[in-house]
Amino acid sequence: MKTIVIVAHPQLEDSGTQRFLKEATTSLKNVERHELNINKKGHFDTAAEKELLKRKGRIIFQFPLYWYSAPAILKQWMDEVFDITDAAWLQEKELGLVVSLGQPLREYRLGGREGLSLSNLLSPFQAFAQRLKMQMMPLFIIEQFIYQTEEEHQELLIKYQQFLELPIDFSFDQCQSWFEDKLKEIMEKSSIEDRKNLKMLLDSFGERHEQLNELKREVSLIRREDGYYGE
Amino acid sequence: MKTIVIVAHPQLEDSGTQRFLKEATTSLKNVERHELNINKKGHFDTAAEKELLKRKGRIIFQFPLYWYSAPAILKQWMDEVFDITDAAWLQEKELGLVVSLGQPLREYRLGGREGLSLSNLLSPFQAFAQRLKMQMMPLFIIEQFIYQTEEEHQELLIKYQQFLELPIDFSFDQCQSWFEDKLKEIMEKSSIEDRKNLKMLLDSFGERHEQLNELKREVSLIRREDGYYGE
Repeated sequence: MKTIVIVAHPQLEDSGTQRFLKEATTSLKNVERHELNINKKGHFDTAAEKELLKRKGRIIFQFPLYWYSAPAILKQWMDEVFDITDAAWLQEKELGLVVSLGQPLREYRLGGREGLSLSNLLSPFQAFAQRLKMQMMPLFIIEQFIYQTEEEHQELLIKYQQFLELPIDFSFDQCQSWFEDKLKEIMEKSSIEDRKNLKMLLDSFGERHEQLNELKREVSLIRREDGYYGE
Repeated sequence: MKTIVIVAHPQLEDSGTQRFLKEATTSLKNVERHELNINKKGHFDTAAEKELLKRKGRIIFQFPLYWYSAPAILKQWMDEVFDITDAAWLQEKELGLVVSLGQPLREYRLGGREGLSLSNLLSPFQAFAQRLKMQMMPLFIIEQFIYQTEEEHQELLIKYQQFLELPIDFSFDQCQSWFEDKLKEIMEKSSIEDRKNLKMLLDSFGERHEQLNELKREVSLIRREDGYYGE
């Protein structure tokens, strides 16, 4: 499945978050980025924009929250590109939102400073997906990127890449295979010496993967025998 | 109190609803209309736009629902004109939304075709008003204008004018006085002959106003004596 990331940011070059996310996609073969820019007449080339989406199974809207919604350029793009009378081609595609916040996420809840949840504020996208019969992915929130530690950035990188590439509700097994694929890719680009070490790492990772899968099966069998289905 | 109506519609000249609403404001002295248009560079003159709002106690955003939200031009205007670090001048102003729908209102509820309420979809405006310490007015919805009867249009005209001019939660008394003021205005513009008839109408209206006020007072007294405070 191919993914397209529609990037909507009025000052793209000034955004550290967006630079980081761009960097994170360069190695992903099945992910295309598309930065929104209007032409000289102030509009989008509707046909060209549609064409970009047609071969993609997953469409991601990526933007910073501006006044509790997407920046205007994304709304303009939606208003100009999508037509309710010609929507069959969008059916079954997945729609994901990658939203970056300047404020802590905890403000967006009952009793928080904003008092409204992001799921509430972004509900127009849910209605949009529903109307076009697209499947809405779980919200992907990036909270105050500039205050995050190096470790948090690394974790974000992995989660973001997986959000773009893995199926919704991916299994443990799929996640492990994804890591193995990434290791293989790095191996192919490495020197002969590094390749040997990476090969050992990959083999050990593969073995553990098998063992972990086995363990997971056993645990789930025990749970079933005990009549335990989780909370 | 002065009111400004910010009109956001990408094809303003094609909209029967907007023509009707424009017509409805021509006689209102304390209501100014402002149709949003970007300049050649694709932006708004932030200082000029702010200046327009400064002397107004009530700001109305008037737009058709496009993909479950306002048209992009309104969002662009909001993104460019309002700045969270310079918001004190907006405090205490009232914010109202006049939203026209192409679909029946009944679709926007649990189990309706859209499954989400307008109060939910338009919640970014609530968060916006709250953050700027503005008072949000009750939503003003215009449902499928082109399918409305002549009588419904007349009713809409009155309700819309009152929404722009009367205080939020206006009393019966204020509403009656508003009608008297409108009659007086018509009188002033009429021929001498018509003026006589209108004068009679106005006198009779004024008498009834007094009687109705008296009646309302009595009813409320009776209710209080009965310990009845309504449902």
